Amino acid sequence: MSTRKMRVGILGATGVVGQRFVELLRDHPWFEIAALAASDASAGKVYRDSCTWRMNGDWPAGAGDLMVQPCVPPLDCELVFSALPASVAGEVEESFAQAGYPVITNSRNHRMDPDVPVLVPEINADHVRILEAQRKWRGYSRGFIVTNPNCSATALVMALAPVHRSFGLRAVQVTTLQAISGAGYPGVPASDLVDNVIPYIAEEEEKIERETKKILGELVDGQFRPDDLALSAQCHRVNVRDGHLEAVSIGLKRPASPEEIRAAWESFSGPPQELRLPSAPARPIVVREEPDRPQPSRDRDAEHGMATVVGRLRPCPVLDYKFVLLGHNTVRGAAGGTILIAEYLRATGWI
Amino acid sequence: MSTRKMRVGILGATGVVGQRFVELLRDHPWFEIAALAASDASAGKVYRDSCTWRMNGDWPAGAGDLMVQPCVPPLDCELVFSALPASVAGEVEESFAQAGYPVITNSRNHRMDPDVPVLVPEINADHVRILEAQRKWRGYSRGFIVTNPNCSATALVMALAPVHRSFGLRAVQVTTLQAISGAGYPGVPASDLVDNVIPYIAEEEEKIERETKKILGELVDGQFRPDDLALSAQCHRVNVRDGHLEAVSIGLKRPASPEEIRAAWESFSGPPQELRLPSAPARPIVVREEPDRPQPSRDRDAEHGMATVVGRLRPCPVLDYKFVLLGHNTVRGAAGGTILIAEYLRATGWI
Amino acid sequence: MSTRKMRVGILGATGVVGQRFVELLRDHPWFEIAALAASDASAGKVYRDSCTWRMNGDWPAGAGDLMVQPCVPPLDCELVFSALPASVAGEVEESFAQAGYPVITNSRNHRMDPDVPVLVPEINADHVRILEAQRKWRGYSRGFIVTNPNCSATALVMALAPVHRSFGLRAVQVTTLQAISGAGYPGVPASDLVDNVIPYIAEEEEKIERETKKILGELVDGQFRPDDLALSAQCHRVNVRDGHLEAVSIGLKRPASPEEIRAAWESFSGPPQELRLPSAPARPIVVREEPDRPQPSRDRDAEHGMATVVGRLRPCPVLDYKFVLLGHNTVRGAAGGTILIAEYLRATGWI
Amino acid sequence: MSTRKMRVGILGATGVVGQRFVELLRDHPWFEIAALAASDASAGKVYRDSCTWRMNGDWPAGAGDLMVQPCVPPLDCELVFSALPASVAGEVEESFAQAGYPVITNSRNHRMDPDVPVLVPEINADHVRILEAQRKWRGYSRGFIVTNPNCSATALVMALAPVHRSFGLRAVQVTTLQAISGAGYPGVPASDLVDNVIPYIAEEEEKIERETKKILGELVDGQFRPDDLALSAQCHRVNVRDGHLEAVSIGLKRPASPEEIRAAWESFSGPPQELRLPSAPARPIVVREEPDRPQPSRDRDAEHGMATVVGRLRPCPVLDYKFVLLGHNTVRGAAGGTILIAEYLRATGWI
Repeated sequence: MSTRKMRVGILGATGVVGQRFVELLRDHPWFEIAALAASDASAGKVYRDSCTWRMNGDWPAGAGDLMVQPCVPPLDCELVFSALPASVAGEVEESFAQAGYPVITNSRNHRMDPDVPVLVPEINADHVRILEAQRKWRGYSRGFIVTNPNCSATALVMALAPVHRSFGLRAVQVTTLQAISGAGYPGVPASDLVDNVIPYIAEEEEKIERETKKILGELVDGQFRPDDLALSAQCHRVNVRDGHLEAVSIGLKRPASPEEIRAAWESFSGPPQELRLPSAPARPIVVREEPDRPQPSRDRDAEHGMATVVGRLRPCPVLDYKFVLLGHNTVRGAAGGTILIAEYLRATGWI
Repeated sequence: MSTRKMRVGILGATGVVGQRFVELLRDHPWFEIAALAASDASAGKVYRDSCTWRMNGDWPAGAGDLMVQPCVPPLDCELVFSALPASVAGEVEESFAQAGYPVITNSRNHRMDPDVPVLVPEINADHVRILEAQRKWRGYSRGFIVTNPNCSATALVMALAPVHRSFGLRAVQVTTLQAISGAGYPGVPASDLVDNVIPYIAEEEEKIERETKKILGELVDGQFRPDDLALSAQCHRVNVRDGHLEAVSIGLKRPASPEEIRAAWESFSGPPQELRLPSAPARPIVVREEPDRPQPSRDRDAEHGMATVVGRLRPCPVLDYKFVLLGHNTVRGAAGGTILIAEYLRATGWI
Repeated sequence: MSTRKMRVGILGATGVVGQRFVELLRDHPWFEIAALAASDASAGKVYRDSCTWRMNGDWPAGAGDLMVQPCVPPLDCELVFSALPASVAGEVEESFAQAGYPVITNSRNHRMDPDVPVLVPEINADHVRILEAQRKWRGYSRGFIVTNPNCSATALVMALAPVHRSFGLRAVQVTTLQAISGAGYPGVPASDLVDNVIPYIAEEEEKIERETKKILGELVDGQFRPDDLALSAQCHRVNVRDGHLEAVSIGLKRPASPEEIRAAWESFSGPPQELRLPSAPARPIVVREEPDRPQPSRDRDAEHGMATVVGRLRPCPVLDYKFVLLGHNTVRGAAGGTILIAEYLRATGWI
Repeated sequence: MSTRKMRVGILGATGVVGQRFVELLRDHPWFEIAALAASDASAGKVYRDSCTWRMNGDWPAGAGDLMVQPCVPPLDCELVFSALPASVAGEVEESFAQAGYPVITNSRNHRMDPDVPVLVPEINADHVRILEAQRKWRGYSRGFIVTNPNCSATALVMALAPVHRSFGLRAVQVTTLQAISGAGYPGVPASDLVDNVIPYIAEEEEKIERETKKILGELVDGQFRPDDLALSAQCHRVNVRDGHLEAVSIGLKRPASPEEIRAAWESFSGPPQELRLPSAPARPIVVREEPDRPQPSRDRDAEHGMATVVGRLRPCPVLDYKFVLLGHNTVRGAAGGTILIAEYLRATGWI
């Protein structure tokens, strides 16, 4: 791998996920921001003047001075991260892949395409093999499209994967308590959430159910075979800034003791840890022992927001076990997870 | 039934549940507050000076001027409502029952006693028959002890009962998002709940699991036979003032269509409705059709806080159906539910 | 005054203030809703289908079935209430006044016009006399435009007026802590207010300063002469659903004891109380004695949201006295205040 | 100054301020924690088992394993930081000073003693000279007592000092919107703050008024001469985790333009900056230009929580100027401010 920094572009740079990309790539050892693109309303302005900075602290020095360009190839970069809204992501991402750019995206549009992997590098790094077929089928020369999962699915699948591998999963019930930042900006009006909970997030339950099964599934003969577990999700928006909490019940295929499940979590690691990727959490799964943890405000920053934190493992009278998990939805569940994918692709020579 | 108002006493009158009793009994057509009792710290003071009024509006005229007495019989009344903390409720309630007072209590201490009913008058009014045995076994002459269920169990069992009757329930998964007021005063520190969720409420999951099965069970040959459904609860405290939201999945014993379940809910009623009890909700279960309801702030006051509001009924990939329910935890789930029991006992001649 | 109900129209009926008008006019003894008008996007739909109902409870029976019309005269009614956004209110309101309709508006556009009164009927009912000049200057035959003040100014001026009358005011410092509902819907994003305060509300400080002086001023020779007090406002948005809290310091022209100020507040009343208008608060100013009141959640519903609640009167080391006040911003501070104006105009024969 | 780390003890180590001391002293270049002391309930336990850790992240390795001792001298250390509650701080701190320990305290008890300085090292470092008199009067050999100001006063006085020096202050009006963490743990019940503001904090207004004048005052002939400005404070508790926001109006003795005031802020620095103390903020005052800043969640961590952030400077119709400021109440306003004092005393040879 070359030691030269790779020049990256960000599509949808003015939104919250786009800004999070800019923040997380500040001082990244392998990537440097070379291009920022956004909607026509922002294109042509200096980044600093094109939007309100919603991350903590101040504008990053270099990126703040870049000119925002339209979301049309070519961009002067070797790779694009996409934080585009679903209304436009589909076509724009295809046009960049067609033009030769590797596209690593946080948008949902292509996740369920039969030739696009939904990657969680600790879990299904091997799904990247579909890219050869993708290029052939779509006629891409050097470009491709890789997606990360929905924020809730990301946190969930991390906790499920080691149990799935060791004991098999036949059924999963998950109830989410999701943070406001997951809805983007402006997102949910304050008047809907003060002294309230909203028991509905459009299309979220379907995404969690579908994407989790694709990630835990196998790539056989160039086709994704989703896992056959039964998975049911109920989603809620709660008055929390960052961090999705999920209450989970699981039914196993083979019996396991609580100690065995805990051991599966604590020993879990994968290619990002082996390859010592810059954004890889040392512990992808952090197990807490207190009766009342994980909690969003206290645990979302574990491993710099890149881990899933689990706790309260105990028997479930309906399935086998129940537990609580927490993931940082705008770090590991969005820009951070996408950057980790790029690091994996770089370390393995895909880009 | 006499038209004279019955004189009632309130044990634990200075706490939040005690104050809610006082508020709900203001202008009650059948009961009038004749005695207020509380801990030694408050006894001997005029009610208005004994505590901070935490309900909306001002002190009720009459009750505010009563002298607070110690929680020791005799009190000058015909019936006592108990809002005592669990640390003292057990013995004090027994001493009043022994002294001849019907005791209707919101405290948990006696709920699982084999000779004490946990009453939800729409559902298991017949469980009141155990009181004859209770009197005999305990040597009570005229007194007795009746309990209402835990606030989360109350809202849940209302939504389950009609489905249980019509189709049978084999399994229930419930994840609660509970309001702050359920923890009493001072309850949860604000610094634990700003921008946070606490995924743990001590003993709450056990209470929901046990009490629901007792209420849905049968009284056979003088013994409670709990229902055999598998029930699993996961409890969370969220930043909401009043109203417990619960995400539920149910497995049925006999197949049912969504329309049949909805019909079972909408047609559900029981003795409180037939007897036209003053606090009875016209519709014990309110079904909402919007995709994002019920919500605590918008639906907790349905039927003056005495109903369970349900919504989002849809198939569950793991069990059979999933839905969301909401109940007002300090009205139907506490003082209001207890008063409804008293109304039922009065209308049926038990008091 | 005729006992027949007057037929009213609501401009901007689909927004939050418009919905509040609909809610407050449900069962009004003097007015009935005959017409609802809104933007072209809603016009032509049945009201129930034209927007999401954001008030508590369900759609009002009659109004829910009305067809929404465009905001263009004629409407089949005798009077219009305006809840239009400022971007269109100016011209639309003029067109209705020109067409012969009395227009009573919650919008800011015409408040500072030299021939339009900003009415708080307890305080400056006599300002209504300007309407004769308004009709002459504008060539209105039967129509006219009357405004209510900004929500923060309404609550403030109620507490200031009795002190101003009795002792004169030379200076007022006010810092507001304003509720979310004041920003309309969707208003402030939740992600901006969780664990946060926003120390800025566009144009709010200017409105408070200008309108208060106009209301406390005099109408002399057909011209408004604003009061000469020095008034400084600082405005904040806080995480509260309803109820604006304001911390006030006042400098007096003539010395007064705390008891005299309290007496001025408690004895304050005006035409709405004398005329027993249906929406008039029995006590326009409610004085609380507790050290920590008024509070938004506990005091905003005093007098059905139509009063200003004051407390914590004490000496100010910089001016003379300081105190805290609270007003319900969407009731007295918006639709409720506007309806009270209409009641006053009806009782005095202006409509 | 020796390069050896100084061994420090923490009184009241199990409370939130005590824990913040432990967190901020983790890896401190000049101090190391040698002793932890707390109430009898905690003494004798290992720190890790003596309380719930309420800071983010995990227990600090070393400190977590220390044995908690009673708050009685001797402790095996050279200096004590006090985070004791006011109910016991007075006597305990005196006993340590008497026993020869320098005591640097966050407690309020001794702040207004005529021989105790309230230090903000950027502002009144010279007040430390009173310590010689203190030792003489109290008969302390090597020990002494130094205090930091109340959290709200700290943030305020930082913004006032440069203006005071350059132009003189005749009057200050301040309205605070204070965070929950200022009340300690458990502090304010969540049920008092959801959808609410509390316009009262016991004794806070008096503390702000008194301490600010003492800090801005002079030490003349061994006596503190408080500044003669008129200062009025109104305090509110709002639903924010950390960061006190304050709306301020100031009257100047000598005229100044907004540019001059801004320049006074931006050029402000003092002994901590000159001495390059480890905890000193590079910019003690951070000036923001956006119309809606500072905000607690976005600005409290400026300069690692050690700065006062100001914004919205504009003319005040009553006094001369108004502006908004923000300070991190548990960092600069508590433990962080106290540690900065210790660093100053160390750098200048007092300890």
